[in-house]
Amino acid sequence: MTSTAAFNPPTRVLMGPGPSGANPRVLRAMTAPLLGHLDPEFLRIMDECRAMLRQVLRTQNGVTLATPGTGTSGMEAAVMNLVEPGDRVVVGVCGYFGERIAQMAERAGGAVTRVNAAWGSPVDPAAVETAVKAAGSVKLVAMVHAETSTGVQTPVEPISKVAHAAGALLLVDCVTSLGGVPVEADAWGADAVYSGTQKCLSAPPGVAPITMSPAAWAAVKTREVPSNTWYLDMQLLEAYWDDRRNYHHTAPISMVYALHEALALVLEEGLEQRWARHERNGRALQQGFEAMGLVLHADAGYRLPVLTTVRIPEGVNDMEVRGALLKRHSIEIGGGLGDLKAKVWRVGLMGESSSPGNVLLFLSSIGKILREQGFAADVRAGLAAAAARLDQP
Amino acid sequence: MTSTAAFNPPTRVLMGPGPSGANPRVLRAMTAPLLGHLDPEFLRIMDECRAMLRQVLRTQNGVTLATPGTGTSGMEAAVMNLVEPGDRVVVGVCGYFGERIAQMAERAGGAVTRVNAAWGSPVDPAAVETAVKAAGSVKLVAMVHAETSTGVQTPVEPISKVAHAAGALLLVDCVTSLGGVPVEADAWGADAVYSGTQKCLSAPPGVAPITMSPAAWAAVKTREVPSNTWYLDMQLLEAYWDDRRNYHHTAPISMVYALHEALALVLEEGLEQRWARHERNGRALQQGFEAMGLVLHADAGYRLPVLTTVRIPEGVNDMEVRGALLKRHSIEIGGGLGDLKAKVWRVGLMGESSSPGNVLLFLSSIGKILREQGFAADVRAGLAAAAARLDQP
Repeated sequence: MTSTAAFNPPTRVLMGPGPSGANPRVLRAMTAPLLGHLDPEFLRIMDECRAMLRQVLRTQNGVTLATPGTGTSGMEAAVMNLVEPGDRVVVGVCGYFGERIAQMAERAGGAVTRVNAAWGSPVDPAAVETAVKAAGSVKLVAMVHAETSTGVQTPVEPISKVAHAAGALLLVDCVTSLGGVPVEADAWGADAVYSGTQKCLSAPPGVAPITMSPAAWAAVKTREVPSNTWYLDMQLLEAYWDDRRNYHHTAPISMVYALHEALALVLEEGLEQRWARHERNGRALQQGFEAMGLVLHADAGYRLPVLTTVRIPEGVNDMEVRGALLKRHSIEIGGGLGDLKAKVWRVGLMGESSSPGNVLLFLSSIGKILREQGFAADVRAGLAAAAARLDQP
Repeated sequence: MTSTAAFNPPTRVLMGPGPSGANPRVLRAMTAPLLGHLDPEFLRIMDECRAMLRQVLRTQNGVTLATPGTGTSGMEAAVMNLVEPGDRVVVGVCGYFGERIAQMAERAGGAVTRVNAAWGSPVDPAAVETAVKAAGSVKLVAMVHAETSTGVQTPVEPISKVAHAAGALLLVDCVTSLGGVPVEADAWGADAVYSGTQKCLSAPPGVAPITMSPAAWAAVKTREVPSNTWYLDMQLLEAYWDDRRNYHHTAPISMVYALHEALALVLEEGLEQRWARHERNGRALQQGFEAMGLVLHADAGYRLPVLTTVRIPEGVNDMEVRGALLKRHSIEIGGGLGDLKAKVWRVGLMGESSSPGNVLLFLSSIGKILREQGFAADVRAGLAAAAARLDQP
């Protein structure tokens, strides 16, 4: 039998669409001794996570927990528990993750109407309204707050109004927004919100925060057939997270430790301060890109500060540039998904990775590589524009 | 906003049904810098995990990976991908986890026949044969190799023969056996095997090894409808784990690091040596219990060395004893599930927790507590019997 090769993962500057860099305190928390999933001390840690999650999600919802999987497990838990066979579901799709919600809703047996928008634009609430009216009785309207594939932020409140006027529940994907841009589950009137840990919360991927409003919870509890999934059945999960403590799965102990420490770090920084930090660094990067001569892909006014899509200039080789960033500077960024493949780069500034140093390092690094590729990037102007924005609040 | 309380989980001696204690090397591996889920260095680590998993599972199956969730996610992946609506499924149920498989198969739309055995006995292959013949065309026969709720090991080969004679696929739950007692996926003719990491592999819970034979894979690939689950769709997972590297989810990076280190530790120790260690320590505990005057619950000849069920003597209070173990000795053991609640204790000796020191510490600790409870445990005889067995190979 052979054993393992040397285990020494390199240090990267994580500026892709996630994972972001983790705070050393978060990594250290994972080395705490393992506890049993029903140990009183572990249950106390779960309770603290629940309380902190409510603060970070801005909700009073009782049903607030972390599903035992990555961000997509939060999506699956929300969709598979809320959608029953035959339910009408309207999904706003302006990128890859909206489409993923639609596919999951179809697997749950839902009759799905997609409200499409261009990949780079937000979902249009008027189009959602038209679709909801055409569909008749709608059980669920679903949308992505921060579309990781395009860098677009779709405002939640207009779509929330449409959904609730039609008596539908509202599901909001906040995988890339939570902890980086304002998420207001209760003020929005969102009935189901989920996220991941490896974006703006800056913990390793592995658990997914989720919350459900009393209305959503009533819908889950009165299902006629059990949800498609046993592993992510919200009623079984909640019966473990609440005072019943019914055994369902062996909680991913070390990941819950990581979540606990990451949430504590968010609250120590302060949500508003954290949002402001992401805003400042993200806008600095975007202004730097434009000053350098690059074109931002997402519609102005809807650009996420935490994830920027920038168009790859003509004649520039996507893979060569990303390869050079990784090899020379140990910087990871993301490529385009779907129709945007080889057309955009996705540059994340999330959580610990959202820092002035990363903004300047990245602009300087990619500027030089672009020039080698024959694109006359004005690196000096880019850095100056970014630095000017970084000096503002 | 409030911040977190002090985060200092206590050190436990983990002798419950899992999680077991983790090797410090495994905990340390999780603090390695995060990599992106498509980083070449991370893909190399995934490939090494795949190769090591094949060695530990004793299989040549190409489709061998780790699902992004705890052991139950492995069960859900196996069941939900293999069972299509209307498929006939025969499940051997001799405890809680066999029943869980049956429930999942029902959620997948399967027509399920349960072959029940007493909680403490193995599943009878003759009864499985009768059920398979009565059911007509059977798609899948499912069984639990090591039933965590009862401490019983059901031999796989007799049931494998029955399944294959009927042209059915064989699913085997090895959550509690892998790395502790012999698991021979290929030699058994098992078509789907899954496990967890927090038992005899001694990593934190959070990923689940799974392997599928070419026959099982053909069944998955020729499904008429997609599996119920998108998150645990094996075709999507395999397309990420194999050379296609198609994005599906953001891998739980740190948990994959932990798995990598845990598998390396298993192979460094040697599978046969590891099985022998678990056998020696488990039998020592069991002989110690009997010499002390306690009664083992599982049928002789079918007792798992890695998880022992022992009957709670009459007049002894379950919760008081477990509470005293935890408070005075920081030892965790498990209570009974379902019908065995308050009737048995479940004492695990898995992975790092399977040590001579833990055997002797536990017998000494519980012996004293039992005497306080009015049960005349012969602690001296128990320790002597255990020590004698520990001295043998």
